[in-house]
Amino acid sequence: MHGHGIYRLPGYCRRIEEGGYNLRPDIQVRRETPVSALVDGDNGLGQVVVTFAVELAIRKARENGLAWIGIRGSNHAGAGGVYAALGLPHDLISMYMAVGNANHMPPWGGVDLLLSTNPVAYAIPTGEEPPIVLDMATTVASYGKVKVTAQKGEPLPVGWMVDRNGQPLTDSKRIHDGFLLPIGGHKGFGLNFIIGALAGVLNTAPFGSAVIDFNEDFRTPTNSGQVFFAMRPDLFRDLQEFKVEMDERIRELRNSTPMKGAEPIRLPGEMALRRERQMRAEGVPVASHVLEQLDKIAQKLNLTDRLEN
Amino acid sequence: MHGHGIYRLPGYCRRIEEGGYNLRPDIQVRRETPVSALVDGDNGLGQVVVTFAVELAIRKARENGLAWIGIRGSNHAGAGGVYAALGLPHDLISMYMAVGNANHMPPWGGVDLLLSTNPVAYAIPTGEEPPIVLDMATTVASYGKVKVTAQKGEPLPVGWMVDRNGQPLTDSKRIHDGFLLPIGGHKGFGLNFIIGALAGVLNTAPFGSAVIDFNEDFRTPTNSGQVFFAMRPDLFRDLQEFKVEMDERIRELRNSTPMKGAEPIRLPGEMALRRERQMRAEGVPVASHVLEQLDKIAQKLNLTDRLEN
Repeated sequence: MHGHGIYRLPGYCRRIEEGGYNLRPDIQVRRETPVSALVDGDNGLGQVVVTFAVELAIRKARENGLAWIGIRGSNHAGAGGVYAALGLPHDLISMYMAVGNANHMPPWGGVDLLLSTNPVAYAIPTGEEPPIVLDMATTVASYGKVKVTAQKGEPLPVGWMVDRNGQPLTDSKRIHDGFLLPIGGHKGFGLNFIIGALAGVLNTAPFGSAVIDFNEDFRTPTNSGQVFFAMRPDLFRDLQEFKVEMDERIRELRNSTPMKGAEPIRLPGEMALRRERQMRAEGVPVASHVLEQLDKIAQKLNLTDRLEN
Repeated sequence: MHGHGIYRLPGYCRRIEEGGYNLRPDIQVRRETPVSALVDGDNGLGQVVVTFAVELAIRKARENGLAWIGIRGSNHAGAGGVYAALGLPHDLISMYMAVGNANHMPPWGGVDLLLSTNPVAYAIPTGEEPPIVLDMATTVASYGKVKVTAQKGEPLPVGWMVDRNGQPLTDSKRIHDGFLLPIGGHKGFGLNFIIGALAGVLNTAPFGSAVIDFNEDFRTPTNSGQVFFAMRPDLFRDLQEFKVEMDERIRELRNSTPMKGAEPIRLPGEMALRRERQMRAEGVPVASHVLEQLDKIAQKLNLTDRLEN
C-alpha cells in the first residue's frame, strides 16, 4: 500500500505539531451491548483508536459470536486491510469501513466534492492458502495512489479522474482540477454513500461537506468515523470445514484458465502478502522526496543519529 | 427491476413442473444464537425461504440489536432490494447478499465462468426523504439486464461484456460467447468473491463450479446461499437524530451542483421508488414475448378466464 504507508508520516507529524491530535486520548466505550459498542476516540491518532475498537470487537465476537463497533472521534487510520487482518489470528471474519479524510469525489451526476474514497476492507480465514484480505476504496483509484503517481510526475491512467465536464483527466499536474470516479459509476456512488451512512452518520461522525480535509487543515479535530465488524465462522459451520472449503474455492479460481495477455489471476490479499514478504527480505522502497521529508523531520526532532545507525 | 420481475415467472413455473422445487419445504433454523442463525430452506422457493430468514433477522435484531442470518437450501429469490427494504418499517438497517444462480463471469484475469453476479443490497431508514435502498450486482450489468436487452434485439453498451480475448462484446446475439465484467475490475472481482464466501461457503452452499445454472437445469436442487443482516440504528445514536441527519446528507448531495449534460443526481432507491409509483398508477409494462409466455402458462393451467377478467 504505497498510498498509505510511511508517506503519510510527514502529515501525521505536522498534525501533532499543530495540535490537531489529542496525544493522551481518553478513549471511551459508549452505548455498549454484548454485540455492539460506540467507541469515542477522543481525537486520538486513528491507528490507536481503531486498534482499540478492533480489540473490543474481537473480544465480543469471540464471546458472543459477532460484534459491530462504531467509531467516532477518530482520525485517519491508514490501510483498512491492516485492521481487517487483525481478526485472522482469532479465526474471525472481519470488516472495516471508513469515511475518508478528504473529499475528492462528487455524487454521480454532480461536480461538488462531497464524497471521499470511503474504503471497505474484509478479511476471511483460510486453511493452507493465504488468507483473503480485500482492501478497496469505492473509487477507481484511491487519492493516495493519485498523489503518488503525481509525485512521480507520471500521467494518470484514463478512468482514474475526470474534470468538471466529465472529460478524462490524465495530466497529473492538474489533479486539483479533477475528481475521482466511483467504481461501476452509480453503483460505486451507492456503495460510497452506504459506507458514509454507516461509518459516518450512524456514529455521529462527519460525512459530506462536514468532512475536515486532513491534507489542508492540521488543527481542527476531524472526528473521523469508522466501523469494525467481526464474526465467528462457526456460527454457521464447522471452522475447519469452512477453512478447507475456502482453500478449495481459492484454488479453483487461481488454477482456472487465464486470459491471454492478462495479468495472472490473483485472489484478494495475495499481492499484498507477496509484496510484504519481498519488503521484509529486501527492505521497504521509499520515494526520494518522502525520504527527504523524513530526513527533515528527523533533524528537527534530533533523531539524525538514530536514523544514520 | 425489469431483470427480476415477472419475466422470471416462466422459469419458476418450469422448475415447479420439472420437480426442481420442494413446494412443501420444512424450513429449519439451525445453529441458533440470540444474534445469528443458519436457515435451511429445504429447497423451497427462494422468495419463501428468504422471507422466513428476514422475519427471523428482524425479530432478533429488534430484541438483541443486530442479527446475521445465513441461508442454505434456498433458491433464486429475485431482487435483493425487496428483502433489504423489509427492515425499513421496523427502523432497521438491513443488508442482503446472495450467490447468483448462474455463472456468467470469470475471475479477474481468467476466462472460465466460475462466478455469478453475486449481488448485495442495503436499506437504511430516513426521515422525510425516501429510504435509501441500494441493490446492485457486483458486475457492471446484471445478467437479467443483458438478457432483457438481448430479447429486445438491442446492442449491449460497451463495458457490459467482453469476449474470451477481453474485447468488448456489443452484439446481443452473441451473449453466450462473452462474459460479464466486475465493477472496478479487480475490485469488483474481490467483492464478488467476498459475497460468494459469506453467502455461499460460510452457509455450506455452492459458490464457484458447484453453482447450478437455474436457466439450464430445472430439476437439480440449487442449494442457493444467501445472507440477511439487520441492525438497530439506536445501538449507536438516537433513532430520530439519525433519521434527521440522513435526510440532511441526502439533500446536500441531491441539491449539489449537477454536471452539465449528465443524468440528475439520484440517491440509491430514488429511481426504483419513482418507477414503482408510476407502475402503480399506470400499470406494469410487460414485454410482448414475456406476455406470450405468460399466456401459454395460463392456458396450460386453465387460468385463461381469470387473466381475461
